[in-house]
Amino acid sequence: MQHNYFDTSTTIIASATATGGAVMVVRLCGERAIEIADAMFRGRQPLSVAKGYTLHYGTIVRTTGEVIDDVVAALFRAPHSYTGDDIVEFTLHGSEYITSEVIRLAIEHGAVMATPGEFTRRAFLAGKMDLSRAEAVADIISSDSAWSHNVASTQMRGDYSNRLSALHDELVRLCSLLELELDFSEEDVEFANRDTLNKLLQDIDDSVRELKSSFAIGNVLKNGVSVAIIGEPNAGKSTLLNTLIGDDCAMVSDIAGTTRDTIEATTTIDGIRFRFVDTAGIRTTDDTLEQMGIDRAMRAIERANIIVHVAPVDNPKYDDISIRDNQRYIRVINKIDTSTSSKFEADNDTLTISAKYGDGIDELRAHLRSVVDTSQLSSGSVVVSNMRHYAALSDAAEALNDARRAMRSGLPADLISEDIRRVIHHIGEITGEITSDDILHSIFSKFCIGK
Amino acid sequence: MQHNYFDTSTTIIASATATGGAVMVVRLCGERAIEIADAMFRGRQPLSVAKGYTLHYGTIVRTTGEVIDDVVAALFRAPHSYTGDDIVEFTLHGSEYITSEVIRLAIEHGAVMATPGEFTRRAFLAGKMDLSRAEAVADIISSDSAWSHNVASTQMRGDYSNRLSALHDELVRLCSLLELELDFSEEDVEFANRDTLNKLLQDIDDSVRELKSSFAIGNVLKNGVSVAIIGEPNAGKSTLLNTLIGDDCAMVSDIAGTTRDTIEATTTIDGIRFRFVDTAGIRTTDDTLEQMGIDRAMRAIERANIIVHVAPVDNPKYDDISIRDNQRYIRVINKIDTSTSSKFEADNDTLTISAKYGDGIDELRAHLRSVVDTSQLSSGSVVVSNMRHYAALSDAAEALNDARRAMRSGLPADLISEDIRRVIHHIGEITGEITSDDILHSIFSKFCIGK
Repeated sequence: MQHNYFDTSTTIIASATATGGAVMVVRLCGERAIEIADAMFRGRQPLSVAKGYTLHYGTIVRTTGEVIDDVVAALFRAPHSYTGDDIVEFTLHGSEYITSEVIRLAIEHGAVMATPGEFTRRAFLAGKMDLSRAEAVADIISSDSAWSHNVASTQMRGDYSNRLSALHDELVRLCSLLELELDFSEEDVEFANRDTLNKLLQDIDDSVRELKSSFAIGNVLKNGVSVAIIGEPNAGKSTLLNTLIGDDCAMVSDIAGTTRDTIEATTTIDGIRFRFVDTAGIRTTDDTLEQMGIDRAMRAIERANIIVHVAPVDNPKYDDISIRDNQRYIRVINKIDTSTSSKFEADNDTLTISAKYGDGIDELRAHLRSVVDTSQLSSGSVVVSNMRHYAALSDAAEALNDARRAMRSGLPADLISEDIRRVIHHIGEITGEITSDDILHSIFSKFCIGK
Repeated sequence: MQHNYFDTSTTIIASATATGGAVMVVRLCGERAIEIADAMFRGRQPLSVAKGYTLHYGTIVRTTGEVIDDVVAALFRAPHSYTGDDIVEFTLHGSEYITSEVIRLAIEHGAVMATPGEFTRRAFLAGKMDLSRAEAVADIISSDSAWSHNVASTQMRGDYSNRLSALHDELVRLCSLLELELDFSEEDVEFANRDTLNKLLQDIDDSVRELKSSFAIGNVLKNGVSVAIIGEPNAGKSTLLNTLIGDDCAMVSDIAGTTRDTIEATTTIDGIRFRFVDTAGIRTTDDTLEQMGIDRAMRAIERANIIVHVAPVDNPKYDDISIRDNQRYIRVINKIDTSTSSKFEADNDTLTISAKYGDGIDELRAHLRSVVDTSQLSSGSVVVSNMRHYAALSDAAEALNDARRAMRSGLPADLISEDIRRVIHHIGEITGEITSDDILHSIFSKFCIGK
């Protein structure tokens, strides 16, 4: 049933909604969408004579005349649709059986099953959106917190594309100035004043670096902040995890070594997603299984954005942990409810909590949240959150560096221009102006079917 | 957030689709649906000036001006909508976050969260569909095989309602004939010829009985056929279940007594759903857990439509099992692959199989399927599949019986008429002409939210 991925003349069909719910939506898209829809739909009039942006009540009928379902058909006519093609969407009763029967019937009439992301890929190929906006469609679907939604939404609506497009235009201007010199190279003139060029290059470099550096926060906004909870066995790490998440997801007992595997759970604090990893208590052990858990804990600690080091109030010592430059380290004294001293004295850098009774947990949450500085981000700030874009921006920054070095060394215009063309190429990779079939395939295959 | 269940003047909102998928649909319905939609939607024109049955591209915007999502709004104007109210449906990107934000925004603007089944209940209260058709909406959503869909579809499209409505009309005619006599009772005339009345009553009785008896198959079509697989420990029951289902859902081992609990799995054979119960091997045991499994197996056997009794070829004996009148009993000899005789001789009533290698499985499936006689059912046959309807039809049949007895005994017209009124009452319970708030609540609360 798989059709040629780059053939856009076929008419594709897929369910655009998840299984279950009161209704499900089946989306038919392509040159023959209306013709195929009319072959299976009985309404007051054929869709072929209806205007775009209209709704039609009717039934879906098998070739035998048997009715499959009462439906509403939504008609979008080319080019005023998501993909630029004719699109018919049938809203069906929310039954997997009905949906599969309707899809089967459409295939009988000549449609083919859509591949993952094919609708959005067609929108991209039809010039309805550039690649960075198409990618944001997948991000917006998987966004699960206010900030991750914000980043994807800004990208989808094109603020990011506009920024890149402005950058692209400046680069092209720079290039044409340089290449004008080449045409007159015999005459040894410099049309482009070197100072002006240098200034332009500097500005572009600043822009690219700013975008590139936004990935640190963009990645956190999109994927969440990873927090490793570490500490000696029986320090109350699992209890702390459960209290932070507000759910019993980690197995808790008084027996040291209860947590053998790393347990991951997520929660949202003020619009930012935090992924907590409760690590196995780190200690010397003969138990192979426990040792595997400890190894896994060590890896989780290496990757974490924040390390929360927990120790019980009756034994508040912290083994040395090597912290990376970009990691944050928070010390927590737990079980203060069991402390005999009326108020436990902790220094400024240490939080005191009772994971069991919730004391100090709000302070800890606030502390965690403060690690992510969103104060500079207004709604609509352009933030890079896509690994592929980050890689392209890094390549662009490197090419810019080469261009500036060439300029400083007084190298001829054609060599500088070549470096600038490389910058344009890498920026174009993000928007999809320059792209290969392989890249397209790898991007859209990560989408769900029906989008 | 729960509002008065019987207040239909509120404007309700809910997601009509399941979480996930490429798109999700939020449905806003009620007097203020268009006003509330316009407060949050920015398109080329306000929905308030748009015609019904039209689609509108635009954005959903918070009161702060921030865009939540790009959407398509579908507008249905009263009374030409599912519920008879104004309805606006927003098709959003398939993110749970976006959906919940859009619902939250609508609630800010004055909508309330819909209760389960509230959209369909409003359609019923507005006279858009009778109760049996409304109930079929829930059935059609949960239908998972060709025949269960067929039954629900026929009911939803009204063939069943029409049949009941014809019955109702005849009963009312009968009543009015009888009651005409009452008005002239002083004069001791019989307007209604007793033979004609008797014939009419007989015909109605036949109709009700036919509907009532269709429940046996209707229930099977809707809920599936339950098949208990029984036999001595290690007869290969779990292996047979896995082979029938085509999946490894039961734990299989060579150790007798592996299956401690009853395992249920379903598969569809030629449009009919079969629910297989793999029972714990029945034997005398000291193991408490195993004994619990055996007790559960006994109950599953009592409830089953079909009992498949499995014995291994090297020990093909079948303990006596008490079979109910309406149960079917099939004997199966398993492990014929291990038989030394070139061909095992079995009598006509016994199937020989190799659950491990699949021999004889097609024959067994055909045998199971033949138990359900769908030959009399054409598409559109009226079949009762709802327990509530069956109960009402049983009550109607009883009242009809009383009426016929009264007629035979020569009782006066007013007494016969009273019995007929009871029949009308029970038929009316099915279509919802006669119904209480409690019944409505119990019916619609079983729906999902958003329908």
